[in-house]
Amino acid sequence: MFNKILIVGCGLIGSSILRASIKKKISKKVYILEKSNSHIKQIKKLKLKCEILKDLKTQIPNLDMIIFCTHLSEYTKILKKFDKYIGRNTIITDVGSSKEKILKNIKTNIGKKVNWVSSHPIAGSEVSGPKFGDENLFLNKWCVLIKDKNTKKKHIKIISKFWSKIGSKIVFMNSKEHDHIFSITSHIPHLVAYNMVKTAMNFEKKKKSNIVKFSAGGLRDFTRTAASNEVMWKDIFLNNKENIIKGIDLFMNNMREFKRLINMKNEKKLIKIMKDSKKIRKKIISSKQDVNLPDFGRR
Amino acid sequence: MFNKILIVGCGLIGSSILRASIKKKISKKVYILEKSNSHIKQIKKLKLKCEILKDLKTQIPNLDMIIFCTHLSEYTKILKKFDKYIGRNTIITDVGSSKEKILKNIKTNIGKKVNWVSSHPIAGSEVSGPKFGDENLFLNKWCVLIKDKNTKKKHIKIISKFWSKIGSKIVFMNSKEHDHIFSITSHIPHLVAYNMVKTAMNFEKKKKSNIVKFSAGGLRDFTRTAASNEVMWKDIFLNNKENIIKGIDLFMNNMREFKRLINMKNEKKLIKIMKDSKKIRKKIISSKQDVNLPDFGRR
Repeated sequence: MFNKILIVGCGLIGSSILRASIKKKISKKVYILEKSNSHIKQIKKLKLKCEILKDLKTQIPNLDMIIFCTHLSEYTKILKKFDKYIGRNTIITDVGSSKEKILKNIKTNIGKKVNWVSSHPIAGSEVSGPKFGDENLFLNKWCVLIKDKNTKKKHIKIISKFWSKIGSKIVFMNSKEHDHIFSITSHIPHLVAYNMVKTAMNFEKKKKSNIVKFSAGGLRDFTRTAASNEVMWKDIFLNNKENIIKGIDLFMNNMREFKRLINMKNEKKLIKIMKDSKKIRKKIISSKQDVNLPDFGRR
Repeated sequence: MFNKILIVGCGLIGSSILRASIKKKISKKVYILEKSNSHIKQIKKLKLKCEILKDLKTQIPNLDMIIFCTHLSEYTKILKKFDKYIGRNTIITDVGSSKEKILKNIKTNIGKKVNWVSSHPIAGSEVSGPKFGDENLFLNKWCVLIKDKNTKKKHIKIISKFWSKIGSKIVFMNSKEHDHIFSITSHIPHLVAYNMVKTAMNFEKKKKSNIVKFSAGGLRDFTRTAASNEVMWKDIFLNNKENIIKGIDLFMNNMREFKRLINMKNEKKLIKIMKDSKKIRKKIISSKQDVNLPDFGRR
């Protein structure tokens, strides 16, 4: 499909793209740009076929595709250094979880016009690093491609073909719509999980109780979500600030109402809220977004 | 171990106790009190060795143990009907998730003195009904036994032996301590999950977006927790009201601080909060409360 592609940042997602690209013969040559020594060590140990670059001193002309798999806050900094290596036909994509602000930033900060088609594969995990990568990570998972006013059809076609080849199902959104939807399906849930774990830790410190021992009753699942990479999530929270603040306000209003119903012992309304929640669970299982096994099949 | 035991309510937990009791030969005879026709149908279909009672018209004298596996709000109602069948040596236990208020209620509302040793096995699931029961549900799981001032040692010994025989690890607490700890490890996390799902549903209705499709980014795991039985949780929220209200307030204070840090773009503090969360995750895994597999090993 390609002659030369470059993966910028080879953590969990980057290394999964590398593995899938090797498996599906996406490109004759795959370059990796990775600054972390521990990541480089892991990649070498895995013996994945690629050329590792530690910096941009080595010039690679005529790159077909560059995929940014770094933290959002590093995009423009790296892009500026890249500037002279990006050819007319080089298409750039990324895997970031927030879109509108970063696309504006790139437009404003990069002098040269770049062929950018933003992607967001809905795959990932609470663990980080190349050793956790998986060539099947994207298999049958949704990948959102951003189609804004200026996105060129021919570029979308190429990026779309790439994700399809490594197993993703494609869906199109504009960046505004993307940031709206993912604020509620992903960003607020992560913030809430971090906040729940923080609250539990405050409680543990105050009461000197061992809460870990009894975490299986609910808290445990929050700790998994709240074990995700902190720099990645700091970037997402700041990049999608407006939507997230609105979501926090909506969440807090509902929480106040929940508290009021408990205080007033309003059994009927409490039951209604909780019964309604099951509807969405049923939809999630019927649309194959989760398995219908108790406790995620953990027992 | 026993001659006659009675399980009151044969849903997920009751039927798991039934299965485990058969496997471990806990009692010569096991009676089940179950009013739901669909549950009775399931139990019969499973051909589990027990005698099913639909009401209390049939008298069973000399019961060794009664285990309440119904909703908390049904305890005193059923106990009142039971009154004349409870012998001097009958020990009563339950599996409820909230303790202090219900134990006070029983003391106040039941004329006769009953031998009650309250239990709370930390096992369960978002699914309900006897067909989901599992003879190994309690294996290597914690079971809290409530040791209050008036709890008799000889009764604790018997109930403790029962749980150990079906695989549980025993831990003792008083009812106050229990309700404190479980408000944060279980009750608030469930309330927060219900509230997150409600917020997502409000959003979906308003924006007319399909959030189910993209729920894998975080929301999905909340929907599992929020698919738990609504009557059970209404009862827990009302029975452990004081602790839960305090927990909601602590959670909301932290959420306001989180919002403030995002608004002020305080990167350092945001990273610190999220980094701290990982510590508790590590403890949960090292104490074998969860598996160290990405995404619960779901991939």
